[in-house]
Formats: sequence, C-alpha cells, structure tokens
Amino acid sequence: MAGKVMIVGAGPGDSTLITVKALEAIRAADAIIYDRLVPQELLGYAKEGCIKIYAGKGPGRHELSQDEINRLLVKLASEGKLVVRLKGGDPYTFGRGEEECAFVMSHNIECEVVPGIPSFVGASAYAGIPLAGRGFASSFAVITGHLAEGKDYEDYLRKLRLLAEGADTLVILMGVSNLDALLDAIKEVRGPEETAAAVMWATTRRQVTVVGTLSSLREAWSKGVITNPAVIYIGKAVSERVRLWRRGAEYFT
Amino acid sequence: MAGKVMIVGAGPGDSTLITVKALEAIRAADAIIYDRLVPQELLGYAKEGCIKIYAGKGPGRHELSQDEINRLLVKLASEGKLVVRLKGGDPYTFGRGEEECAFVMSHNIECEVVPGIPSFVGASAYAGIPLAGRGFASSFAVITGHLAEGKDYEDYLRKLRLLAEGADTLVILMGVSNLDALLDAIKEVRGPEETAAAVMWATTRRQVTVVGTLSSLREAWSKGVITNPAVIYIGKAVSERVRLWRRGAEYFT
Repeated sequence: MAGKVMIVGAGPGDSTLITVKALEAIRAADAIIYDRLVPQELLGYAKEGCIKIYAGKGPGRHELSQDEINRLLVKLASEGKLVVRLKGGDPYTFGRGEEECAFVMSHNIECEVVPGIPSFVGASAYAGIPLAGRGFASSFAVITGHLAEGKDYEDYLRKLRLLAEGADTLVILMGVSNLDALLDAIKEVRGPEETAAAVMWATTRRQVTVVGTLSSLREAWSKGVITNPAVIYIGKAVSERVRLWRRGAEYFT
Repeated sequence: MAGKVMIVGAGPGDSTLITVKALEAIRAADAIIYDRLVPQELLGYAKEGCIKIYAGKGPGRHELSQDEINRLLVKLASEGKLVVRLKGGDPYTFGRGEEECAFVMSHNIECEVVPGIPSFVGASAYAGIPLAGRGFASSFAVITGHLAEGKDYEDYLRKLRLLAEGADTLVILMGVSNLDALLDAIKEVRGPEETAAAVMWATTRRQVTVVGTLSSLREAWSKGVITNPAVIYIGKAVSERVRLWRRGAEYFT
C-alpha cells in the first residue's frame, strides 16, 4: 500500500505555536524528517517506533542535500509509511516545500502541505512589531537576504530598493551574513534615521530584540551583535512596539 | 484581581489550523469576543459559562465599533476575567490587534498577542501557490486593497506599482471591491499576460481557486465570479501550482 508525505510547518520556535493539524500529523507519523530550527520538544509527540531523521540545514551546513531529502521522502512513503517532513516556519515561505512536494507528487505519491506560522509573523507578535494596519502600514514586503547562486546581485539590489520605496513595512529574512550591504541599499531610499529592529531567536526563550535606526542597526551588526537566526523589520511598524505587549530581552542602539 | 486580555489569531478558516497556544487560550477564557471570519467550531472549545460576544466586522458591517470593542475588552478584564479577543487570520496582519493591545495596555491591563496563520499563508498551502522560494521568487509583498478613509489614493497606486515591479510574488488582501482598478495598475507594470489567481474562502470546505492572467481575472471579476473573502496572487508562484498538492474546486479563466 502506498504511503503519504505531509510537508508540515512547525512554526517559528515556541512549540505551542504549531497548529493542531500539524501536531496531529506528528502524532500519526511513521517517519519524521526534521530541520535544524524545528522546536525539539515537538519530536516528543511522535508515537513509539517512529523513525526520526535529522536533515540539518543550518546556514552553509546540510546533513542531507536537498536531493537526498527528496529521495528519502519517496523511499519511505513507497514503503507504505506516513512521512512527515517537518520544517521551521512555513513550508511555502522560503521553506522549499514546493520542491519537495513537486518531487513527491511526480512519483505518484500523495502529498499534503500543512502551513505553519512563518518566523516573521511569530516575531511580529512576540516582539510587538505589527506587520500592517491602518495608520502605519498599508503593505509589507518580505525578502530573503540569502541570494541563490547564479542570481544577478545588481538586479536583486534594484528590487530591494523598489520594495524599500513601495512597502510600508519591509522585512528581511536570512539576511544576517550580508546585512551591511542590504541596509546600505535601503538607507539610500529611506534615509539613515528610519526605524529598524532585529528580532533574534523569535518566539523562543532566547528571543532578543535590537531596536534602533538603519544606521545604528548597521553599527550593531558590525560589532557582531546581530546573529542568526534573525528577522529584520524596517518602517513605522517598529515604532508601534512602545505601546504593545512584547516578550524577551530588548536592546536599543 | 485584574484580569487579562489575549489577542488571538484563529487562523485562516480550517479550524485545525489554529495554534495549540490559541486553542488553550479559548479553553481557558472567561469571555470571548470573536469576529465574523473565525471558524465557528472553535467556540465549541470554550468552557461552560464562557461569555461569547460577536463583534461582526464584515466588509462595511460592524456589530460593534472598534471603540466599543476596545472598551469592552477593558471592562471585562477589569472584572477579573481572562478575555480572549479572537480574530480571523493573524492579529498583526491587517487585524487591528495593535489598536486593541495598545488600548488595553494603556489601561494597565495585561495583554498578550498570540499569532495566527494569516489567510495568505493558509491559502498558499491549500491552493498550491508557494509565496517564495529559489527559482521563482526571492520576495513577496502583501498589500490591502481596502484603503482607510482619508488616504491618498494616487500615492497608494504609485506604491502598488512599485511593489508590482519590486516583488516577485504580489498578494492582495481585501481587494475584491475595487479589484478592477488594482489589476489595471499592476497590468501597467507586469503586462496583461502575467499569471494570477484568486483563492476564495481559503482553507475552508468552500475554497475555490480561480486561475488565469491579470486580464482574464479582471474579466472574471467583472462577471461577479470573484467574491469576498479572497486572496489574490500575482506572479510566477501561481504557475508552480500545476505540480503541487491543492485542495478545493478550481476554475480557469
């Protein structure tokens, strides 16, 4: 009998921010292939005998290549197993869920995708930085700072500047390694005094928020204060936080 | 003894897409104030004696005004109650959660925000339209089509065009009532043949996806095919769906 693959978002870090549907999938799974940023407590909900395989995927480090993960999903499901592919955040928000789902389905194996709370949504709630709402933002844009190999860097920066001009709230994911270049490009559009914040380890017990301006955040970065994993927010939305609930340590630059 | 307010995202529509944390809040609540698009099954998890108040908030119709909701949250919490303010989607993604949280906290009442899966993330998973990933999108932008009173419409359209140029995937929320004007503005940048989709009643049993181009979607809109609530997606991401898992009825224009 053919098995099934479920590509499941585990949410941003706090293990209680997983969905009910995702937790049920974990409980039912015969095999779980999980990423580095998945809350480890969640694996404890797996049934006895469930196979747990670590896929890695830190910045620059992979235990398994994407090809190996794809083939493993198909292999395990072909054995009749319910395979849960557990990812941090949301599978379709820079999570490569679409690559895995397409590969599995091309082998005529059933595949279902369960969304998760993306890091930038979880960080928004826990750091008190609303994404959009009347009075401060009619739009937001989310961009990866990690450019895939072979991509045109100049074109990327041109688009980043367009987003900096068009979006009221600008969010950068996976942008720590070259944050200086990104913030410099955004400064050209928004000016050095635009409010900005970095939320590290969002929604976990280790959450730390660094608040300042584009200039002061760049300075903090150069001192090594801003580290992975971090969500960067730029715009008026950051100023909202003084009136809002927020969790975790805060630093001002 | 002072009570507490929790501003809780109920997720996009499928009641199993609520987080574990949000469900625990519903179970513990002494009072729940809920919006129109909250999955009704979730209210069944409330304990006996829990006060349930419908706040409404359909397009153009409100049972309670925002001021009345704010004051009600404070009143109930002042009586020592745990008050859950239950909203569709995510409180900080066009959900006015920041207005309510700031009001509650200004009255020295504890307030916590629990994120939810926004409609555009849920629709992405269930309709098979990934938001961003290598190969098709380095960025996405989300904009409301519902402009607050007193806002400069020309400036709004200028920013919409900038987002249409800068963002690989463009998402429009609450845009059904003036979708023609929005799609016309985007066509100027992307051309009439750009792929586009509308996902209505995302993640619910009533989910319907209409797939086409900017031109054909505008045509479908003029025939009354596209109705509230709908999430609109524009860009290569929409083409990904042919290879992906998706749920619900589909129509091609």
